[in-house]
Amino acid sequence: MALVNEHFLKLPNNYLFADVAKKVNAFKVSYPNAKVISLGIGDVTQPLCPAVAEAMHKAVDEMTTPDGFHGYGPEQGYLFLREAIIKNDFLPRGIHLEASEIFINDGAKSDTGNIQELVRWDNSIGVTDPIYPVYIDSNIMIGRSGEIKDGKWSNVTYLPCTAENNFVPELPDRRVDIIYLCYPNNPTGTVISKEELQKWGNYALKNDTLIFYDAAYEAYIQDPDIPHSIYEIKGARKVAIEFHSYSKTAGFTGVRCGYTVVPKELTASTLSGERIALNPLWYRRQCTKFNGTSYISQRAAEAIYTPEGKKQVKETISYYMDNARMMRETLTGLGLEVFGGENAPYIWLKTPDKENSWRFFERMLYNAHVVCTPGVGFGPSGEGYVRFTAFGSHEDCAEAMERLKKWI
Amino acid sequence: MALVNEHFLKLPNNYLFADVAKKVNAFKVSYPNAKVISLGIGDVTQPLCPAVAEAMHKAVDEMTTPDGFHGYGPEQGYLFLREAIIKNDFLPRGIHLEASEIFINDGAKSDTGNIQELVRWDNSIGVTDPIYPVYIDSNIMIGRSGEIKDGKWSNVTYLPCTAENNFVPELPDRRVDIIYLCYPNNPTGTVISKEELQKWGNYALKNDTLIFYDAAYEAYIQDPDIPHSIYEIKGARKVAIEFHSYSKTAGFTGVRCGYTVVPKELTASTLSGERIALNPLWYRRQCTKFNGTSYISQRAAEAIYTPEGKKQVKETISYYMDNARMMRETLTGLGLEVFGGENAPYIWLKTPDKENSWRFFERMLYNAHVVCTPGVGFGPSGEGYVRFTAFGSHEDCAEAMERLKKWI
Repeated sequence: MALVNEHFLKLPNNYLFADVAKKVNAFKVSYPNAKVISLGIGDVTQPLCPAVAEAMHKAVDEMTTPDGFHGYGPEQGYLFLREAIIKNDFLPRGIHLEASEIFINDGAKSDTGNIQELVRWDNSIGVTDPIYPVYIDSNIMIGRSGEIKDGKWSNVTYLPCTAENNFVPELPDRRVDIIYLCYPNNPTGTVISKEELQKWGNYALKNDTLIFYDAAYEAYIQDPDIPHSIYEIKGARKVAIEFHSYSKTAGFTGVRCGYTVVPKELTASTLSGERIALNPLWYRRQCTKFNGTSYISQRAAEAIYTPEGKKQVKETISYYMDNARMMRETLTGLGLEVFGGENAPYIWLKTPDKENSWRFFERMLYNAHVVCTPGVGFGPSGEGYVRFTAFGSHEDCAEAMERLKKWI
Repeated sequence: MALVNEHFLKLPNNYLFADVAKKVNAFKVSYPNAKVISLGIGDVTQPLCPAVAEAMHKAVDEMTTPDGFHGYGPEQGYLFLREAIIKNDFLPRGIHLEASEIFINDGAKSDTGNIQELVRWDNSIGVTDPIYPVYIDSNIMIGRSGEIKDGKWSNVTYLPCTAENNFVPELPDRRVDIIYLCYPNNPTGTVISKEELQKWGNYALKNDTLIFYDAAYEAYIQDPDIPHSIYEIKGARKVAIEFHSYSKTAGFTGVRCGYTVVPKELTASTLSGERIALNPLWYRRQCTKFNGTSYISQRAAEAIYTPEGKKQVKETISYYMDNARMMRETLTGLGLEVFGGENAPYIWLKTPDKENSWRFFERMLYNAHVVCTPGVGFGPSGEGYVRFTAFGSHEDCAEAMERLKKWI
């Protein structure tokens, strides 16, 4: 009898963004003429830049000729892209990586989920709270989360990030095997200083903890003192796997390309205490369960690192960050408490009078026809907050803020 | 202390195609002037067809405009492609599927590996032998294979397919929870009749067995009586998940697109005997650990189903099948025993005098400078066979056969 993986049955039936969509649709049915502006889901809106499009056209043309045709590529990605990554994303920050430490993927979501296969199902995990929901959901599926009680999973250590601690999570008061960190942070839009990040590195080195570091939003960092990579801190190569994505950097949410860094020094332990390097294990995993990313997407990603590509990508990021600045100013001007939005495309708003996230969400939807994401959907410490994204068009963001001015 | 998944340490250090490449490279170092022809790895060589290229160019152009830009797509794939699949791959064969039963992916390798997450780690598995190596490797990683002894895994039931049984595997003599079937078969190039496939369906229905059916090569079927999909047989919707790929159908090994069918009637059991539908579980898995396939790749796949696309794709398949026919004829003419190659792009050659696969491989490499894949690399029952692929150019295939005529 084929038996189902019963861990799946523990998953919450609702998925945050599906719930948001359902409520928005219900509103639209009742008010078909209302023009709803979504500042909810974190998807980009601006077109691909010309350098990227040109590279993709060229790659497609190559594929139509016998000499230019590319079949199966290397499972870890083409060398041309891995070398461009090392040269542009790491060397200028004093980080030396080998090409064999970079693994090209079809976006960070796949790898942040799949990477868990490398470690035993019974490792304990720690997460900053609020957090991107799939970190926890993917652990539930593998049986690592334990049981849920009062909205929290028994094998998960929650590290609150709230206005009260200025969104700086405290180190766990116990040993945790695996820690998820995401900076610039989704959903709060806050960042971590090198000094704070070094504390996490030291904790991991001391406790033999593995850090899964999600750097998907690093391209939005404006402040020169904020680290773009965990490998900017000492010892990180021994404890951290880092996830990068071109989704937000260059509008690749529909193109699908990102990369994962698994340094050669990084190890985990067997039950008998033997140290096992994770780099060859991840390579083996990818060779067995992945067949490389689209050649066209990889050429597209390479184009981001050309002089024109860099300039054009920067312009789009500035466009979104102009939205963030304008939204911050408006919301602050309305007397609201807002966080993030300075080195990240997310603004984290504290609801007035600690109003429940979903209640605030619904009131704003029905009164201002503006969609945000309820903070509690990202975890217990997100209650009393909502997230706005800066990924809309200037016009939509401005119009949304005008409506909030009238509504608040 | 972060603990490693020790199942990974059971994986064989060698990977078939890496071993082949290593031996070929060693030969090339000794004989730098030899022109080696590879009929080894199963990668296509012919360029993308014009209809596909045109669709990709159009999709790239769309992505450069504010109105045509596509960000995150549906995790299960765009409806335009799922509807084209239903209309073209299934309806003409009398198979009725809903769009929600189709899941677009980035190639069959990902899904044949990842699908295992849906079922408990301790289900038993059965495989036809020889077999595509990643079916077993991906089960080793999750701890499902047991221990290895004399080249066989203890929790795996091997179903030999050899010349002696005319490559028709017998039903297992015990209950098996999950069965892998691949038809047209990789590596033997043989096919299964509807009657034989119905026996498997009946076995699965009777024993509550889940069938993972890999139909990646169905486009190569020439004989109108051979089933293209397991859903052509009765009861299959209750027991089978089917994997399709555009890699071999339309030269998408570098484009990355395929799809998986998970029918709504399909269930697996909890320990307490409750039936759980796998379709919503797979949807949940994909939403959590996958972010959809490249929009450009999905538009490329859609173009395969246009009248021009169908015609062009068929021409390329005929091109490869012409190779297969010519190779079969030459090898048969040389007095060798060959199988497959009539409804599949693979030819399975029995080595003369039951010579060891690797020994034959090396002799052919050093004497004829032609590369094949040693059959034993696909499993114990592959010993004494080698695989040739028909994916080369006409010129290379013809030249390789000329060399074999001189060498044999």
